Amino acid sequence: MEGVSCIAGEGSKRYEILGLTQSKEARSLTNAPQASDGRSRRGGGGAEARRAARSGGHQTQLTYIRRNIPLYEVLSEDGLALIERNCETVLEEIGIDFREDPEALAMWKDAGADIKGERVRFPKGLVRSLIKTAPKEFTQFARNPDRNVVIGGNNTVFAPVYGPPFIRNIDEGRRYATIEDFRNFVKLAYLAPSIHHSGGTVCEPVDIPVHKRHLDMIYSHLRYSDKPFMGSVTAPERAQDSVNMAKIVFGDEFVDKNCVMVNLINANSPLVFDSTMVGALKVYARNNQATVISPFILSGAMSAVTAIGTLTQILAEASVGMAFAQLCRPGAPVVFGTFASSISMQSGAPTFGTPEPAHVLFGAAQLARRLNVPFRSGGGLCASKLPDAQAAHESSNTLWPTILAGVNFVLHAAGWLEGGLVSSYEKFIIDADQLSMLQRFADGVDYSENGQALSAIREVGPGSHFLGCAHTQANFETAFWRSIVADNNSFEQWRDDGERDAARRANATWKRQLHEYEAPALDAGHDEALNDYMAKRKAVLPDSLT
Amino acid sequence: MEGVSCIAGEGSKRYEILGLTQSKEARSLTNAPQASDGRSRRGGGGAEARRAARSGGHQTQLTYIRRNIPLYEVLSEDGLALIERNCETVLEEIGIDFREDPEALAMWKDAGADIKGERVRFPKGLVRSLIKTAPKEFTQFARNPDRNVVIGGNNTVFAPVYGPPFIRNIDEGRRYATIEDFRNFVKLAYLAPSIHHSGGTVCEPVDIPVHKRHLDMIYSHLRYSDKPFMGSVTAPERAQDSVNMAKIVFGDEFVDKNCVMVNLINANSPLVFDSTMVGALKVYARNNQATVISPFILSGAMSAVTAIGTLTQILAEASVGMAFAQLCRPGAPVVFGTFASSISMQSGAPTFGTPEPAHVLFGAAQLARRLNVPFRSGGGLCASKLPDAQAAHESSNTLWPTILAGVNFVLHAAGWLEGGLVSSYEKFIIDADQLSMLQRFADGVDYSENGQALSAIREVGPGSHFLGCAHTQANFETAFWRSIVADNNSFEQWRDDGERDAARRANATWKRQLHEYEAPALDAGHDEALNDYMAKRKAVLPDSLT
Repeated sequence: MEGVSCIAGEGSKRYEILGLTQSKEARSLTNAPQASDGRSRRGGGGAEARRAARSGGHQTQLTYIRRNIPLYEVLSEDGLALIERNCETVLEEIGIDFREDPEALAMWKDAGADIKGERVRFPKGLVRSLIKTAPKEFTQFARNPDRNVVIGGNNTVFAPVYGPPFIRNIDEGRRYATIEDFRNFVKLAYLAPSIHHSGGTVCEPVDIPVHKRHLDMIYSHLRYSDKPFMGSVTAPERAQDSVNMAKIVFGDEFVDKNCVMVNLINANSPLVFDSTMVGALKVYARNNQATVISPFILSGAMSAVTAIGTLTQILAEASVGMAFAQLCRPGAPVVFGTFASSISMQSGAPTFGTPEPAHVLFGAAQLARRLNVPFRSGGGLCASKLPDAQAAHESSNTLWPTILAGVNFVLHAAGWLEGGLVSSYEKFIIDADQLSMLQRFADGVDYSENGQALSAIREVGPGSHFLGCAHTQANFETAFWRSIVADNNSFEQWRDDGERDAARRANATWKRQLHEYEAPALDAGHDEALNDYMAKRKAVLPDSLT
Repeated sequence: MEGVSCIAGEGSKRYEILGLTQSKEARSLTNAPQASDGRSRRGGGGAEARRAARSGGHQTQLTYIRRNIPLYEVLSEDGLALIERNCETVLEEIGIDFREDPEALAMWKDAGADIKGERVRFPKGLVRSLIKTAPKEFTQFARNPDRNVVIGGNNTVFAPVYGPPFIRNIDEGRRYATIEDFRNFVKLAYLAPSIHHSGGTVCEPVDIPVHKRHLDMIYSHLRYSDKPFMGSVTAPERAQDSVNMAKIVFGDEFVDKNCVMVNLINANSPLVFDSTMVGALKVYARNNQATVISPFILSGAMSAVTAIGTLTQILAEASVGMAFAQLCRPGAPVVFGTFASSISMQSGAPTFGTPEPAHVLFGAAQLARRLNVPFRSGGGLCASKLPDAQAAHESSNTLWPTILAGVNFVLHAAGWLEGGLVSSYEKFIIDADQLSMLQRFADGVDYSENGQALSAIREVGPGSHFLGCAHTQANFETAFWRSIVADNNSFEQWRDDGERDAARRANATWKRQLHEYEAPALDAGHDEALNDYMAKRKAVLPDSLT
């Protein structure tokens, strides 16, 4: 039974079939370099070489996902209507604070809301009515038009982790992130076929003064990738810098007429928007750039402990944020966002990959569709400190709901570790591999004559196998998705290769990818203008590191 | 930012909120033992003690899953009808071999099939028509009636891995399995609240002669667990031994009238049933015991490389096996089974957790529902050699489709490693934890007034938090599912605890569980009679180990 590296358990004759195929047909199918001594059906050098070729900088980029599978919906129509009614009650009776922003309060007053101090209460129907000017879907333009993404509708866009102050890799362990790490993650996202977006703060470059680092981050996205990216939201003037730098590359008029940045605006849950976030929101919306209005929820702390209660609050906060963007500029693209997980009620610690946030994710996606706006949620979230089984299960437990709920914009899709405190090099590779798996799953099935494969069943008949048949020969190259992380070798081969786990194999992959990375071309004039802009701004901004 | 062990990335004010909650409300909520030096919000001793209490032998057993969430279906109605039409074509024109079993051929001839040699061809509609006598769902009785399971309908039953000749654990690495390992996995399945079934060959006890070991396996299930179990299928006489031993415990008449064993019958794909499997099938069906008719498919080897082609073949094989069981005894319980994965077309190696088998799983579940019979598939399948991120992702990539497709009987739900060659102690614990997560997910959401939580939103209002509010106090104990594997501690606490990954924590868990295990009571007369039967049989069976 050893040496065939195959399935046990269900009958036994199957082993022989596969043992046969491995020594004959499989080799003839691939014509791959193989050891001829019969030691293994997968010669180490050949397999390694093929894996290297696949996982280097030369994979074919995939466009964003145009889903060809049904949606999964957990909540009933009655349940959704109940949440919407309760949300209107919350907005009318409790309201939402807009703090330290008199202009926002005045805008809400003009729109017909009731203002008491910083509390804004909304007459029934006002918020939903304002959102009607928001586009159902929109294109975010990249500097490489092949990398443009459509956000909304039946599409899904994967973007990397956002915000960690630390990085982790096997070689160095855990340490503060630097601008070099930032560039590395931009490069890895650029190289990953299933990551459609360069993201935003892929890690926090704490070696650059806090007032200046947004400039280096925007520049890195523009210089080291040609995928779409996100602007800075940590202060209104940094949002304006982001817009100004985008205009250097895309042109003033193009930026005013089109979305070239999506920007993450968090509600300060429960039921508060603060002046920093609202300030950035105003800059982006008035410049016609997209805002992702995301209540940041750990149920039990920032919301009630139940799914319906949490969804009611999420709907209230996201709706008000999107409506406010429409007050700033009717028609400005917005995304209904939610980041929802839970805390441990025993310890207060944030938890990920648990079932209750999955219910919330599915429900929020349904609520967003009923508002006719794009939806952001999900990602490869986990609490684990290492890219181990915990990290993988927790990530899968968010990624599967992400793809099945029809999330349109997926932040934190790769690299997230330790509750978002850490950008992990190895987990980035492992996650990106899973994203490409889900992208293939979303392609659905092929009902064509070739897909039906009746000719193959006829040709092979009872008791034989399909490895050599004409249908297999015609389809084998594209028939099955291929992982660049999984080791499917025999036990003996894996043992002889050093018994590496997935994280250790991913370690070799990101190093090889960074080694082979080549930057996409950037117009020299644009590059110079960006550097001039940065130099001018850095000359007037303070050097504080906190 | 350090020391709060919380979420980065999305805004920053959130940290402060949670920092506050960790030091105050979280502790007052739990009244758990905590270090008073402020070093950590999760005192190691307290957390460890609570985890131990949860993961010992004293967890509340869950009944099988009565799903309260919708089904997810990938295939269209037209697509399903297409597969059914093509299946009838395959059955009529190509047919299926019943090898070395003249009785089976005669039975098919009497039923109206066309026989040429060992090839059986089926007039259109015959097979579907025969299946109509099969029950839509049935109860499998356990010797503890609280552990009875209903297989079919809107229910899901999780059973352990089946068949591995090897075991792996961190302490010993990989080695051949023994009867002691077998008993250990029976005990671990008995203790796991979310594993509803004791399974069958939880590992292959290769230290017992091959002709005798089925006796020890059946005895172990009856002695060390009170959950329902599976009979031997490796020879007709071993199936009969299984029935005889079940009759000792359940009584002759009860067994004849009720299902007390489900039994795994593999088709020898493509399109062959062999005399071993058909022989066991006949014994079980004639004794009114359930047979799970499972094409064992690695697409590309045992079936065509496409989803629709594979599903056509699966439907043909499973239907014919179920129809044959009805020829043996009309009304005998049957399960539409499928084990479907793929091979790597580059190396011939089996792969798991890839997207194409997920399509097949969803499609086969739909086909089974259209036949009005229970469905078996899924599990925690993986090719990985270790319980690492690869194992977890691959397992999740089958488990999520399993729960969403509405699989009724899930073999290999826990412990499967290395393509089913290995039963892993650590992975068993990690998988069982994930099963309990999915069981909670399948509970769906609570739309009641308490679930709506409007009172909580009113009480807390903008800018505060929910940890101390009355609604949280009333719900916190049951609000969120709890993992017994995940480490949600702060980085510093985790580091000080020894930087253990999930597998290492699971290692401590299974050892503690086996240490604390207490066998369920077994009637002394039954025990004696079982031992007498085994002794009598062992005296006449040969001692060969292969």
